[in-house]
This record gives sequence, structure tokens and C-alpha cells, in this order.
Amino acid sequence: MTEISFEKKLEQYRIQINNRIVKDLSKRKPNTLYSPLIYFLKAGGKRLRAILVLLTAKCANRNLKSLPFNQAIAIELLHNFTLIHDDIMDNSDKRHNQLTLHKKYDLSTAILAGDALLAIAYEFLDKGLNTNSVEIYEEFTKGLRIVCEGQALDKEFETSKSVTLDDYFKMISMKTAALIKTTCRIGALASSEKIDQKDLNKFGLFGEYLGIAFQIQDDLLDIFGDQKLFGKTKALDLLEGKKTYLLIKAMSLAQGKDLIKLKKLIDNKGISSDEVKDYIDLYRKLGVIEFTRKEIEHYNKLAKNVLVDLSRKYDVSNLNQFLEYVINRQY
Amino acid sequence: MTEISFEKKLEQYRIQINNRIVKDLSKRKPNTLYSPLIYFLKAGGKRLRAILVLLTAKCANRNLKSLPFNQAIAIELLHNFTLIHDDIMDNSDKRHNQLTLHKKYDLSTAILAGDALLAIAYEFLDKGLNTNSVEIYEEFTKGLRIVCEGQALDKEFETSKSVTLDDYFKMISMKTAALIKTTCRIGALASSEKIDQKDLNKFGLFGEYLGIAFQIQDDLLDIFGDQKLFGKTKALDLLEGKKTYLLIKAMSLAQGKDLIKLKKLIDNKGISSDEVKDYIDLYRKLGVIEFTRKEIEHYNKLAKNVLVDLSRKYDVSNLNQFLEYVINRQY
Repeated sequence: MTEISFEKKLEQYRIQINNRIVKDLSKRKPNTLYSPLIYFLKAGGKRLRAILVLLTAKCANRNLKSLPFNQAIAIELLHNFTLIHDDIMDNSDKRHNQLTLHKKYDLSTAILAGDALLAIAYEFLDKGLNTNSVEIYEEFTKGLRIVCEGQALDKEFETSKSVTLDDYFKMISMKTAALIKTTCRIGALASSEKIDQKDLNKFGLFGEYLGIAFQIQDDLLDIFGDQKLFGKTKALDLLEGKKTYLLIKAMSLAQGKDLIKLKKLIDNKGISSDEVKDYIDLYRKLGVIEFTRKEIEHYNKLAKNVLVDLSRKYDVSNLNQFLEYVINRQY
Repeated sequence: MTEISFEKKLEQYRIQINNRIVKDLSKRKPNTLYSPLIYFLKAGGKRLRAILVLLTAKCANRNLKSLPFNQAIAIELLHNFTLIHDDIMDNSDKRHNQLTLHKKYDLSTAILAGDALLAIAYEFLDKGLNTNSVEIYEEFTKGLRIVCEGQALDKEFETSKSVTLDDYFKMISMKTAALIKTTCRIGALASSEKIDQKDLNKFGLFGEYLGIAFQIQDDLLDIFGDQKLFGKTKALDLLEGKKTYLLIKAMSLAQGKDLIKLKKLIDNKGISSDEVKDYIDLYRKLGVIEFTRKEIEHYNKLAKNVLVDLSRKYDVSNLNQFLEYVINRQY
């Protein structure tokens, strides 16, 4: 029961956020710049970061009169800016079942659309805000900078022959978790002038653990996500030889022929679709799936513990449900 | 005499700005992200925008204790962010006599380096600031957004067969002059908490006129700049068929064979180096050079008039000298 109504609440937020974004972009000119952005943002996306801003704000100040939608949109646009530019860097053809911006239009359009989206994100950042504006600007900028550094590490990753789990955690902490940490901190800062510095750090820490769990689970869903829903696996990461948690963990466990097999995947920058089942079987044999689930559970628990701590002062039920929703999502 | 000492002063500012930028970037990691930025920023650049922040601040508050170097650097990094991404969009090979970032490294490195530089620009934006932080963030973001929109117009320009001088002025107002307007407004805002709103607008207007004069002169220098210093012309804009003030003015004046000749340049997206002299001769015959000089003088005068108005309250001598320096530069 709670599960369903919480998902409905998320859906309502998502619709509101999307409507506000499209309404804003539709007013802007020139069309050659903003039509591509509307195309990109209408395609989909769960808007989890925007929703997390709203839920954190609500948690941090139960007397909050109006939710910080503008700051939520700022975070969401920042995230989409990274997606547009990452798609170029990864030379991805598709996102949300439609062509990526540089494929639908061209390289220049995609670069510039990303840049403009970041500007608009900053425009939203202090709209309607009457508290902590400068702190929020600083958090946002720090998040942006770290995401860029994380993306640079990810590019190093791609060409490196040997990568450790430590490298992996450093990379995802910066590329993924830092922005979710920023998300929670901005939600808390937008909620109240009087947010306690220690509590602010706790909201941030919750976001960080959530972000790490989220990314490892994303790696796992590459293999098991669509399988349950559509009866087949996409396994894009395997096809592209992406250094996921699963692959790096497998490398650390494998020996002999198995290790050679994994190294082949890395050397060849991926495998063919015929080989996918073979590699998933190898993951199973090595116990990688179990290790991955345990790792997610570990960060899930760390995030939960932060909420337990916060629950002495705040009603954390929404954040708890959000965490569960994210950890249990199948896509 | 004054001329020389003013240029020396500019040189001293330029050195200080460059030292601060390189010192900051050298501390940062990962190297794969920041080495390319150091490479780019060490290559040169007149740092005119950064210097203009300092001079405007000094003018707006004669009792200013320390110059807003951080805000000057923020503006300069924003400008360099646009250069890095524009070089990709224009597929330029060289800038400041060295390879552009995407040619020296690769596309991904250049996109990401630009993004990170923008983040760092925002980090500098409120460093050491104890006044008008939010206003400065908003000005900066507005400048960024308009520059992106101006670049989109410039891309439309490139493919359009017919472009009017009105289109040209709209484009350069956004792509070039808006950021110089932002530069002056931020300089004024950083100088004093009590800057009068009307005066702030005047400083911005000065920047806007200066920016337009600067861009038209840039178009003219493509043909006459290096000629004086090196005895030859580069005429890159002609070679690439760029729709400069000179070309659009020429189109509006030419008839018959001359007009066909100019249309050929546009249709073929440029000319060969053998034809450069021929086209410059055509410009001369049509009186384009004279019209261009007059247009620069027109905006020079508008900028000067704003300074005359400001001079009732402020010592505008530095800004006057800066304007003269910019208008008379040969490169």
C-alpha cells in the first residue's frame, strides 16, 4: 500500500517537474538552441535528483511552505547537461529510446545545448530563494566541478588496462555520488535558513551513500534490469567492455582461463552479443552477482544508518521510502 | 607618455592574472583534465576582459582597498570556456599559434576541459567577495546564457545565404558585447555595496558599446591587423567565408558582377589565398573599409559619451585609456 502511494507521489512530482522545465524552455529563443533541449528533456528520465531535492527539503523543515521546485530543476538540468556532454564523449547513439543530441542534430548543437542548459540550471538555482543563496551557489558549483573531474577519471578508466575497486569507488564517488550529495545538501539548504551544519553534513552523507548504492545497482541492472521486465538482457556494459563494479570484481576473483577471458573483454573493448550469456555465466560462477548485491546492501545500510541518526530530529520516512524505491528499482 | 605607461600597467595586470590562473590550475587533479587547461591558458591571450573588471572596479570605487582579481579571473575563464568550445564548433586548428585543445588532445578532452573551466570560473566568482554576491552570480549566469544564445545565432549565420546588418548586430551584441557588458557590471558590483543602480547600468552600457566596437574592429583587423605589424595579411575570415561586418556591408553596397563575386564567396564558404587581394580590392572599391572605420568610430563615440556622463561622479581616465587602447590595437 505505502509502496504504491509513494510511487504515485513520485510520479506526481515528476510530472510537475517536467511541466515546469518544458514550459520554461518553450519560452526561450533562438529555436536552434532550445528545440534540441526540449527534444532531449521530453524524452524521459526519472527525475530522481529533482525529487530528492524536494524530499530532503521537506524532511529538513517540516514547516516548509512551498517546495523548492526551482532548485530541484536546477539540479535536474545540471544532471542532464552532464548526460548531453557524456553522450558525445561516449559516442552514444541512443538515450531513452531516441537518438542522442549529437546524433539527432550535430556535434556543435549538442555541445552548445549542453552549455546553455547549464546556464539555465544556474538561473533556476536562486529563483524564489530567500535563504542560503550563496551557500547553494557554492554547493552547486562544487558538485559541477567534481562531476567533471569524475568524468575525467572515467575516461582514464576506459583506456587503463588495470583498474582496482579502489579506483572504481573513487571514480563513482566523484562522477555519480558527488552530485547526489549536492542534491541533498541543496535540498536541506533551500529548506531553512537555520539548518544546523552537522545536520547538513548528515543529509549530504545520506546522499553520498545513496549515490554509491545507486551506481553499483545501475551496473547490476545492466545485466538483470530489463531481464525481469522484458525477458531479455541488454548487457550494454558487457558489449562495450565498460569497467563496471561487476567486471572489476570479477577480475579480482578470477584466475587462469577465466582471468584471460576477462582480460580479452578489456583488450577488445567489449564482446559480441553471442558471448553475453557466456560472460554472465562466468560472473555467476565467480560469485560476482552475490558480491555486488552485498555491496549495494552495504551502502544501503550506511545510508539507512544516517537516516536513523537524523530521525532523532526529523521525520525521515520519505527519504527512507525513496532509498528503498531506488534500491529496488528494476530499470 | 601616458600611452606607454598605461600599456605597462595593462601588462602588469596581465602577468598577475596569468600567474594566479596558472597557480590555481596547477594545484588541481586529475592531470588528464587540468593539464590541457594549463596548456590552453598559458598560450596567450590579452586578458582584456579581466583587466576591464579591475579598471571598472577601480573607477566605480576610488577607495577600493583591493582589486577584485578573483572576479576578473572568473570572467576571463568564462571567456576561455567559450573559446575552447567555439574552437570545436568551428573546427579550428589553431589559436595563439598553437593547436586548439581538440586537435592537441581529442574531442572529449576539449569538451570536458571547457566544462571544468566553467565550474572553476564560478568558483572564483565569489572568492573574497563581501558584497553583492548574489547579484554577481546572476549577472555572470545571464552573460553565460546570452553568449550561448549568441553562438547559436552565429551558427545560424554560417549556413544562412542572406544576412543583414541588423542580424549581424544582434548576433555580436549577444556573442561578444553581452559578456563585455557583464564584465563592466561585475567590476562595478564587486567594487562597492552601494553602487547606484543607474550608474551600474551606465557601466554596463559602456561595456556594451565597447564590445560592439571591439568586434567590428576585430573583423577589420582580419584584413589590416597583421599587415602593419608583419607586412602581410592573414585574412582568415575571407578564406573561411565568415560573415563579418565587412562582408555584409559589402553585400549591401555591391551590384552586378561585384555582388555575384561576393555571393560566390558565401556559396563556396570561402575563397583561396590567391583571391584574397582581389576581394580586398573589391572592399576598397565599394568603400567598405571607410564604412567600417566609421562604424567603429560611432560605437567608440557612444562609449565615450557614457564615460563623459559618468565623469561627473567618477574618475573615468582609466576606462577612457582602455577604450582608446582597444580601439587602436593592431592585433
